[in-house]
Amino acid sequence: MVNQRVDIGWQSSKSDSSGVSNSGESSKESSRCSTPVLDADRLRDKMKRRIESGDCWFSLEFFPPRTAPGAVNLISRFDRMGSGGPLFIDVTWHPAGDPGSDKETSSMIIASTAVNYCGLESVLHLTCCNQTKEKITAHLNKAKRLGLKNIMALRGDPIGEDWVEEDGGFNYATDLVKHIRCEFDDYFDICVAGYPMGHPEAESYEDDLRHLKEKVDAGAHFIVTQLFFRAETFLKFVKDCRAIGITCPILPGIFPIQFESPLFAQGYHSLCQLVKLSKLEVPEEIMQVIEPIKDNDAAIRNYGIHQAVEMCKVLLASGEVPGLHFYTLNREVATMEVLRQLGLWAEDPRRPLPWAVSAHPKRKVEDVRPIFWASRPKSYIYRTQDWDDFPNGRWGNSSSPAFGELTDYYLFYLKSKSPKEALLQMWGEELMSEESVYEVFTNYITSKTNLNGHKVMCLPWNDDPLAPETNLLKDELEKVNRRGVLTINSQPNINGKPSSDSIVGWGPAGGYIFQKAYLEFFTSSENVTALLQVLKKYEPRVNYHIVNVQGRNTTNAHDMQPNAVTWGIFPGREIIQPTVVDPVSFMYWKDEAFALWIEQWAKLYEDESPSRMIIQYIHDNYFLVNLVDNDFPLDSCLWQVIEDMFTLLDSPQETQEEGSES
Amino acid sequence: MVNQRVDIGWQSSKSDSSGVSNSGESSKESSRCSTPVLDADRLRDKMKRRIESGDCWFSLEFFPPRTAPGAVNLISRFDRMGSGGPLFIDVTWHPAGDPGSDKETSSMIIASTAVNYCGLESVLHLTCCNQTKEKITAHLNKAKRLGLKNIMALRGDPIGEDWVEEDGGFNYATDLVKHIRCEFDDYFDICVAGYPMGHPEAESYEDDLRHLKEKVDAGAHFIVTQLFFRAETFLKFVKDCRAIGITCPILPGIFPIQFESPLFAQGYHSLCQLVKLSKLEVPEEIMQVIEPIKDNDAAIRNYGIHQAVEMCKVLLASGEVPGLHFYTLNREVATMEVLRQLGLWAEDPRRPLPWAVSAHPKRKVEDVRPIFWASRPKSYIYRTQDWDDFPNGRWGNSSSPAFGELTDYYLFYLKSKSPKEALLQMWGEELMSEESVYEVFTNYITSKTNLNGHKVMCLPWNDDPLAPETNLLKDELEKVNRRGVLTINSQPNINGKPSSDSIVGWGPAGGYIFQKAYLEFFTSSENVTALLQVLKKYEPRVNYHIVNVQGRNTTNAHDMQPNAVTWGIFPGREIIQPTVVDPVSFMYWKDEAFALWIEQWAKLYEDESPSRMIIQYIHDNYFLVNLVDNDFPLDSCLWQVIEDMFTLLDSPQETQEEGSES
Repeated sequence: MVNQRVDIGWQSSKSDSSGVSNSGESSKESSRCSTPVLDADRLRDKMKRRIESGDCWFSLEFFPPRTAPGAVNLISRFDRMGSGGPLFIDVTWHPAGDPGSDKETSSMIIASTAVNYCGLESVLHLTCCNQTKEKITAHLNKAKRLGLKNIMALRGDPIGEDWVEEDGGFNYATDLVKHIRCEFDDYFDICVAGYPMGHPEAESYEDDLRHLKEKVDAGAHFIVTQLFFRAETFLKFVKDCRAIGITCPILPGIFPIQFESPLFAQGYHSLCQLVKLSKLEVPEEIMQVIEPIKDNDAAIRNYGIHQAVEMCKVLLASGEVPGLHFYTLNREVATMEVLRQLGLWAEDPRRPLPWAVSAHPKRKVEDVRPIFWASRPKSYIYRTQDWDDFPNGRWGNSSSPAFGELTDYYLFYLKSKSPKEALLQMWGEELMSEESVYEVFTNYITSKTNLNGHKVMCLPWNDDPLAPETNLLKDELEKVNRRGVLTINSQPNINGKPSSDSIVGWGPAGGYIFQKAYLEFFTSSENVTALLQVLKKYEPRVNYHIVNVQGRNTTNAHDMQPNAVTWGIFPGREIIQPTVVDPVSFMYWKDEAFALWIEQWAKLYEDESPSRMIIQYIHDNYFLVNLVDNDFPLDSCLWQVIEDMFTLLDSPQETQEEGSES
Repeated sequence: MVNQRVDIGWQSSKSDSSGVSNSGESSKESSRCSTPVLDADRLRDKMKRRIESGDCWFSLEFFPPRTAPGAVNLISRFDRMGSGGPLFIDVTWHPAGDPGSDKETSSMIIASTAVNYCGLESVLHLTCCNQTKEKITAHLNKAKRLGLKNIMALRGDPIGEDWVEEDGGFNYATDLVKHIRCEFDDYFDICVAGYPMGHPEAESYEDDLRHLKEKVDAGAHFIVTQLFFRAETFLKFVKDCRAIGITCPILPGIFPIQFESPLFAQGYHSLCQLVKLSKLEVPEEIMQVIEPIKDNDAAIRNYGIHQAVEMCKVLLASGEVPGLHFYTLNREVATMEVLRQLGLWAEDPRRPLPWAVSAHPKRKVEDVRPIFWASRPKSYIYRTQDWDDFPNGRWGNSSSPAFGELTDYYLFYLKSKSPKEALLQMWGEELMSEESVYEVFTNYITSKTNLNGHKVMCLPWNDDPLAPETNLLKDELEKVNRRGVLTINSQPNINGKPSSDSIVGWGPAGGYIFQKAYLEFFTSSENVTALLQVLKKYEPRVNYHIVNVQGRNTTNAHDMQPNAVTWGIFPGREIIQPTVVDPVSFMYWKDEAFALWIEQWAKLYEDESPSRMIIQYIHDNYFLVNLVDNDFPLDSCLWQVIEDMFTLLDSPQETQEEGSES
């Protein structure tokens, strides 16, 4: 159901599976079904396993955006680049930019978003220069609270020329590493920076190596290096590190030369500046290539990709490099291309579960969600962020925190990604009738341009175009939306497809995936009256829940149990059932689903305008319906149910009498 | 896997499923998969639902046996008669027979066995006459501790002629009812006796009715009547009860006339005695039929069946009878035949789960068990009787009580049902070699008579002949047992058969059942060496655990997770996965499986005898192996695995080299 693919849990579990083991202990306390081993491990353990299995990884560095729209873009980029399978991403820290604040653009919030909403293992940078102990501890406590587990400990640039060492203060990254280990024991995995050419301010290369050794001895778990342009530079550095007893992983920092980033707005000149400031040695042969093409961004980028690929090949061939760290400068094309050419970009990484897993430590046991939020996974994570247990007493335990209120909806990424103008172009500058709304839904399904020449790329309930799986149902969906069955969620029935299936697959290799057909839509009360009549014929094959905005709920799910609609059978495991139709959570989803009519759509129009009144009318009078066809081995009967409903509506009044079954 | 069928949970749940309900509350706190609504209700609630749905039930009365072998027989009878779907059974209480003791034959232990091991809703009789309050309370506490939830409160016959009412003592059943409600509040469901002809000692019929009203007013939930022979007798009684304000269910006591019970060892004479003592009026027309055939047991029984059926038909047709209560006198034929003719015997009741569910209140949430105990369900219940949670932290939580020790194995019904002589006839008076043992296993599989003309009806690991499901694998099983792959547990793969399937079906209607093929056997260390070689070719399709008596365990189940091998998909429910192969519990099962060689088989022979030494050799040197084929949609590959093992063993030594995969 969800497009986004994050490769975390199964992969690490896979790497464990070599050979025969001895019995003895049980790892789980849970007394029921399933749980994939989801991301239970720390970053250091993942590295260890990947090194042992010779499985080279990559990681991606980003800096915090300057504006809220920039943050929205960056989060979309996390989703896209996350699909390539990075071991982790890291977010830089700029003391001048209020990096620890609650602003949407702060380092802290961006890193937290990557973890919680994009499911990415994330490393938060932290600098200590000119900071008080209390301030640092507060930052770390906040990071921990937000689910961050990894810190890149840096000194940071002294502010002003007159900086002098403080006694007992944070003068070096080593002090920060010690502080983290002292205050937080073993909670954080710690990364430190290595300088293959020596730190620009260090007295000597050897002196700098000794500082690095101190940082590692103080408790750092791995090293990421400054960027460099010759493989030999890095390989010599590693050799020197090993010689003085540094044994932890050392990741080369790779920068595919490019001028398109804001950092290089001045192109060639910027690069020269950077090189000068950081004491980087850009090899003569590179400068000679760049100089003549310095005004041609595309040519520079192509060269940068070529240069990075060649250098990385040498690094990988050396056997000294467990993973590659990319300075993306918040751009995706060059880095993705380098990774593709190196064969490290996971084109089709297996999804651990059919939905986007959050990487927050608290959520690592989460293995089931209501299907209703399938197209709004970030909203589900947001509304359940205060939960300690998942799925929180089957969503109905009154002693547990409830779903987050809709009024808390301040987070920008729960709002539409598109600006108002674009939404009006897609959803209509002016609506004439309910049928205008049907037209918008139909255009979304068909991906055809509307009368104004615009494609409907999203709906209030669906931020993205149709998922490939939903695409399988396109023809039927078009037909019913055209007649006012306004679908917002659906999945086809699946009877045992391989877990490797590119559209519906998830979970470890060698498994089988099953689904019950599901359809969720808004429709008028007239339709609902006919539908209820028709549904009597489909007992007990079809389960339904029908609710209006006031919460009047009609259902044949007699005992309020969840209905599993997606499950997987895997070698040597328990059954996993990651999506369910749950009667209790449906009532919470209902509030959100109806509210989106008003918040995202009606409010595009003037108060009292006909367009707004049409949406308001639908909001007030339509019903939200969900249908499950329990007979998953047979062709879905849900389309026939809708067909029967229309047939009944079309037939002369006198034949619309009570069905014989109940 | 398990033959026995107990009809409890689903049926009650089914009766609830009528029509549309309104949403509001969640019933479950569990956060993971499944749980059928298993017997969560009290007897009074079950009656209420059955009355509302017009679904007539029956119940069965037994008396405690005199001897231990009699107890073993009675428990087998519980299993057989339980399969017909009684709403409850009840066990009578004879003060002279130490009914509250821990003896295998006591009323208390028999009723507890019916609940815990046979999964039957049970009512324990209790008489109060000449008993102290403390004694009564102690009995009730013990009953509660053993999982009993229902009491039939009786006065009992005064012992001796000189009985007088005691002030403040238990003079009447009413006193006992009051005491139960006072001391145990609402914990017990209480039944009291009704006398359609009036109690033999009552002053008058009307006086007796008033006593009955007092008993009900004191807190009884339903009435079972003394036996009678005319429908009108009962119907008048019910009318009179209703007239004075008794509103609870009144169940007619039915006695199909028969002389085969120990109570009627003297046939006709005994009946006359009974009739006289209990002031029963045997109608003249019945006496006239019986008298001439009084020496012909079969004729009497046939008449008794006929008479009971005709009377029950009148009772049922009256609409005043919610259920029929049968005085079985511990015989099954007559009662079963009456029920069959009335259409009340559930020929193929649906099983709530594939194994025999215990009716102990603590176990009502139990929904998953290790497959190893499939043929020894009573042993599993016994060994886990101290658990508070099921399945107890996935069988591996060290803070929970462990499996009961084998040395606790005193309970007679965990031992073989057959006497030593019968076992020797089946398993061999004298064993010549390991091949003699292979022969025994093969004869068990094929149901053929052995050289001495005896059928092998059981093995130490299988109390009963092959289950119908296992029968599907008969040919393959015969082949491998003949060659020393000594199978003790197996199931075929099933890819979505209807839950109503008569062999592999279980759970509610409209579901689909799945299984992974499973095979468990003892075999020699030579075979295991070859098997391990062969299994490399079947990675990761086949999961295995191989262990010897010392506990050296070889497995490819890398992360010690349970492997679900039976699961069901049902309308409107979560996935249910009732059997798993669990690595931790396998080590406990291993102890039991190996011990059975010695306890049940070796000890049949003299110390130091060749026969005993052969079994001891197998015990000491063979391995216990289990195999799961994870690819349930394909034909099982487990037979091919065994075939490959034999091929490898048969091939010249030099070709037995290491396989290329690992």
